[in-house]
Amino acid sequence: MTDGLQSLFTPASVAVVGASDDPAKWGHWLALRALRGEHRRAVHLVNHRAETVLGRPVLRSLRELSEPVELVVVSVPEPALDATVDDALAAGARAIVAISAGTTGTGREAELAARVRAGGARLVGPNCLGLFDAEAELELVSNDLPPGSVGLISQSGNLALELGAMAAGAGLGFSRFVSIGNQADVSAAELVTAMAAHPGTRAIALYIEDFRDGRAFARAAARAVDGGTPVALLTVPRVGATTRAIRSHTGAMASDAAAVGAACAAAGIEPVRSPRELIDVVAALVRCRPLRGPRVGVMGDGGGHGIIAAALAAEAGLDVPELTETTQARLRAPLPPAASVANPVDLAGGGEADLGNFVHVAGTLAASGEVDAVLLTGYFGGYAEYGEALAARELATAHALARLPAETEVALVAHTMFPAGAAADALRADGVPVYGAVEHAAEALRRLARAGRHTGSIPALPAAAAPITDSGYVAARALLAAAGIPFAAQATVSSAAQARRAADRIGYPVVLKALGRLHKSDAGGVALGLADAGALTAALEAMTHRLGAKTFSVEAQADTAAGVELLIGSRRDHRFGPLALVALGGVHAEILDDTAVALAPVDVAEAEAMIGRLRAAPLLTGARGRPCLDRAAAAHALAALSRVAAAHPEIAELEINPLLVAPEGVLGLDARIVIE
Amino acid sequence: MTDGLQSLFTPASVAVVGASDDPAKWGHWLALRALRGEHRRAVHLVNHRAETVLGRPVLRSLRELSEPVELVVVSVPEPALDATVDDALAAGARAIVAISAGTTGTGREAELAARVRAGGARLVGPNCLGLFDAEAELELVSNDLPPGSVGLISQSGNLALELGAMAAGAGLGFSRFVSIGNQADVSAAELVTAMAAHPGTRAIALYIEDFRDGRAFARAAARAVDGGTPVALLTVPRVGATTRAIRSHTGAMASDAAAVGAACAAAGIEPVRSPRELIDVVAALVRCRPLRGPRVGVMGDGGGHGIIAAALAAEAGLDVPELTETTQARLRAPLPPAASVANPVDLAGGGEADLGNFVHVAGTLAASGEVDAVLLTGYFGGYAEYGEALAARELATAHALARLPAETEVALVAHTMFPAGAAADALRADGVPVYGAVEHAAEALRRLARAGRHTGSIPALPAAAAPITDSGYVAARALLAAAGIPFAAQATVSSAAQARRAADRIGYPVVLKALGRLHKSDAGGVALGLADAGALTAALEAMTHRLGAKTFSVEAQADTAAGVELLIGSRRDHRFGPLALVALGGVHAEILDDTAVALAPVDVAEAEAMIGRLRAAPLLTGARGRPCLDRAAAAHALAALSRVAAAHPEIAELEINPLLVAPEGVLGLDARIVIE
Repeated sequence: MTDGLQSLFTPASVAVVGASDDPAKWGHWLALRALRGEHRRAVHLVNHRAETVLGRPVLRSLRELSEPVELVVVSVPEPALDATVDDALAAGARAIVAISAGTTGTGREAELAARVRAGGARLVGPNCLGLFDAEAELELVSNDLPPGSVGLISQSGNLALELGAMAAGAGLGFSRFVSIGNQADVSAAELVTAMAAHPGTRAIALYIEDFRDGRAFARAAARAVDGGTPVALLTVPRVGATTRAIRSHTGAMASDAAAVGAACAAAGIEPVRSPRELIDVVAALVRCRPLRGPRVGVMGDGGGHGIIAAALAAEAGLDVPELTETTQARLRAPLPPAASVANPVDLAGGGEADLGNFVHVAGTLAASGEVDAVLLTGYFGGYAEYGEALAARELATAHALARLPAETEVALVAHTMFPAGAAADALRADGVPVYGAVEHAAEALRRLARAGRHTGSIPALPAAAAPITDSGYVAARALLAAAGIPFAAQATVSSAAQARRAADRIGYPVVLKALGRLHKSDAGGVALGLADAGALTAALEAMTHRLGAKTFSVEAQADTAAGVELLIGSRRDHRFGPLALVALGGVHAEILDDTAVALAPVDVAEAEAMIGRLRAAPLLTGARGRPCLDRAAAAHALAALSRVAAAHPEIAELEINPLLVAPEGVLGLDARIVIE
Repeated sequence: MTDGLQSLFTPASVAVVGASDDPAKWGHWLALRALRGEHRRAVHLVNHRAETVLGRPVLRSLRELSEPVELVVVSVPEPALDATVDDALAAGARAIVAISAGTTGTGREAELAARVRAGGARLVGPNCLGLFDAEAELELVSNDLPPGSVGLISQSGNLALELGAMAAGAGLGFSRFVSIGNQADVSAAELVTAMAAHPGTRAIALYIEDFRDGRAFARAAARAVDGGTPVALLTVPRVGATTRAIRSHTGAMASDAAAVGAACAAAGIEPVRSPRELIDVVAALVRCRPLRGPRVGVMGDGGGHGIIAAALAAEAGLDVPELTETTQARLRAPLPPAASVANPVDLAGGGEADLGNFVHVAGTLAASGEVDAVLLTGYFGGYAEYGEALAARELATAHALARLPAETEVALVAHTMFPAGAAADALRADGVPVYGAVEHAAEALRRLARAGRHTGSIPALPAAAAPITDSGYVAARALLAAAGIPFAAQATVSSAAQARRAADRIGYPVVLKALGRLHKSDAGGVALGLADAGALTAALEAMTHRLGAKTFSVEAQADTAAGVELLIGSRRDHRFGPLALVALGGVHAEILDDTAVALAPVDVAEAEAMIGRLRAAPLLTGARGRPCLDRAAAAHALAALSRVAAAHPEIAELEINPLLVAPEGVLGLDARIVIE
């Protein structure tokens, strides 16, 4: 899949089409930076009108090239794009980077990509910002980017510039950067694979708006993570107009954010919501190993900082354990009497008195075996203000602190009031992530505590079954029952007499449902607990008059008292495919926002794990004297439903709500299907 | 309550006791800065050993003063503190700031404070960092702080320095700062009142670890907010060892964080969780009026930034409405064809082409009547990099943008990739909050959308009723029933025969509860739905054998099918007093973390509002065809319970769980009381 991508990063020659002397043009900035790599490769500048660019002779056209060119960057007005691509292919290009915009939404991009592929080349863009390889000194971008060890793939140009500035502030830089634009050919997934295989790339940062083949993307990311290259993803949930359009029942609960979340969980990707968070998280992932456990020792010179850091670490789900008496005694020895040593550790002026106390405390914490990470917070980094001697001593202290992780397997993450100071820079240079806001340091630790873990799988989709066309209630029940999910006894009737006969067969009490509408219970189309023929007849007549109902479902009334009602369902995301979801069901479903989502189909083990992730999970496992319910049967039902959804691409939504989970077995009490 | 506090900020004379030439001592830093105000007031330096300090003659003792001194700062070792305070009082001091630490936990501070008050003075500290008044040029602190319009009250010294650095970065500074230390006398509440009355203070920022009289604090803050001085509070929820100690049922749901949250909601305080957030929120509160509504127009030059900002604004609970065709047409006129104008607005290079387009877009959004705030995001602030002409034009554009809020009542909040640039500084100088991370800008808008609103009240506590001593189940029921809360019919029995007689009276089915233990349902001490005398006898005998139970409660079995079970309760916070709380009850209570909390007692209206804040509230109001339940009766019960708790300071916890809310009326089905 990644054929030809090496021509993107290590081309033997480059041509910039649209190179310009006009400092307001992209072709100017690109040419300027492309020439910086001229000692590594031939660089040809092409401009169909100019004699020279940047003081150098230019070609009027790629057709004037006397030798093949490996990589062509195209920054020409959109009407000239097709011809330029043809010229590039004729000139032997193996890779084409199309900066040119203007094709968005025209439908011409697939054709362009096919032509490039047929010509034996690959296409990045169109509508992109270019690419960059630090090691190869390949700068085919409009702006300078800091070099480093993070691979960046971005679907927004300006955002990449912001990420560059933030990365530089964090002491990071990029090994490779690709602006993927409209992904007509080369996709984010392929680039993730290529970057994971690149020795100079130690972590991958992504901004993606369109995942294309979402499962291929997730698989590529999972392979990267498993191979030791962490992946962090900035993306944007659908909001606003989009949200307004997908307000169907299940859609409201499992938004597209849920699809991305499920993919990230399955692949071990760290999802983030802002550029700042992307860089902050990558700074931790690229510099620290995953924590061996969730225990954090907090240390600082001053009480307030330690207390706030401890609270934020706890809020982030980490443990801030009380240290043993032995460790406390060791910590206390050289510190002032006012020092706190239980955790958080407050040096209480002991740092100011002797900077070596920072190393003493951090070293004692790391050696204690009682914490998995040390969070240094507060004033450290500011002692340099007290003169040159202290500045030198603080730098030496920073270097000593930075050695701890390698020596002890305990991670070190720092927050300092002086994030731009020399000691902070020294820590960063030595591989310690340093933050100017303590909550960002706590967040980094939270990520490190779970980094590299997958909570699901990226299942393959089964072959499509014969499409269904009937999306009615009875058909939905039948489809799911055929998959092995038990439903309450039922009969479809169209008169009171038929209804009474069915009820006699099923046994009272029964439920009567008017067929033919969604959200039947909202519309008064469901009558529960009908105890006898009279009640049944009255309910049927009422529905006939009030709702104009013509057909009805008569069903056995289940005893819900001893059970719990779940919602199990599936929704199809247009990029990630079918999702499996489970939530507390019945009237609670929409209200309590307690949903677990995974890529469908899920197997029984994953379905059971999903149920276990619900806040409501204890309701099934005998909380507070309740009976233990048949969670295994619920998991089987969820797995079965997810298989049905996965085998029917025409199904947009599929749902059983409620699924009654009883002490023994489950029973579907309603079903719903939406065909696209 | 704030008598004598003016001597803190505008003293006619100051003495620094412990003034020193040693640059490692606080007395050195304090003296240095105190002397900066010498053109405003007499400054006396006192050192019992030195001849001179900072080249000036010093007094050996305050007793050598020939005239009274108004404010004395004491930075002496703790053993000399008492004598120095006595000297200060003898010297006529009206205010004493005790930097000296070492008294924490000794119990001596109350005595010290009493002596100072008896001497007609007030005491700040001990164990504090000093104070600062920008207008008065009063710098009695160890470090420089930026001057400005924010009043800062902090219980941590180093934290105040971090806040100072962050404030300066945000273009803010402090009008007044007080390090309150151990609050032996002068409290945060008094200082909030004093700062709210200070014309130079436009917002108040707080870091508080101990709220002392929590309700007095909340009332002071509410008065400040109502008077137009916003208040933001950084504090720390109890975690770790503290949390482990308060794991009782209600305690686990309503942590101390809930008490602070209830106080903040009642007072209109903005709660924050980190120093960064405190400054970021204050930057918005001090610069912007509260939003007139939640609608945000997002604009930027580049698609990615606008999309991310729109998603974050939506995540923050704001609306990003699709603009009308009319407004879209107006926006579109001068922009490139690729521009998006539906909201978010992407200038798509239109800003780069003409910076005036930023003013056009922002002005059109502000004039549209379709948004309440404009969020500028992304590249603006970076055009200066393209040369002097653009730099000047960008500055002018910044000034033009900054005029919008005054001209249109639409707020302007900015995020820029270049937060340290000249245009960002110009925006800040003109009163626009500017953030370097877009999620922080979105958060600022979220705060502005609700700023100044109170969601509760700060009730007075009633006179204490005669203390109760019986915390048993039956006594708890009786106490609450006496307050007007209906309970199921009940009888206490100690034999099977008595139980059967009671059940005959009450009517089958009945419930049997073993008395004398908490969490009866966990221990198998509750038997529901006993249909006849046989079942009742069997259940009683089983409990006798298994649990060793000797007394029992026989109760009518309520029909819970048509109702919803709530938990209503109260827990006493040692600073904020009794809290009222409501949650979805029964087995859901602990699992679903859906709780509303307020300061007790609450009236019926506030109780109803609390119920309305539950995610589960729709369950009571007829969601999805369910019956409409008696929310008013539930509110009456909650209000009554909260009055009981408020009248009994000896009650640590009080709870009815479940309270069955039926279509008509409520019924307490269990009760629990914990006496301290």
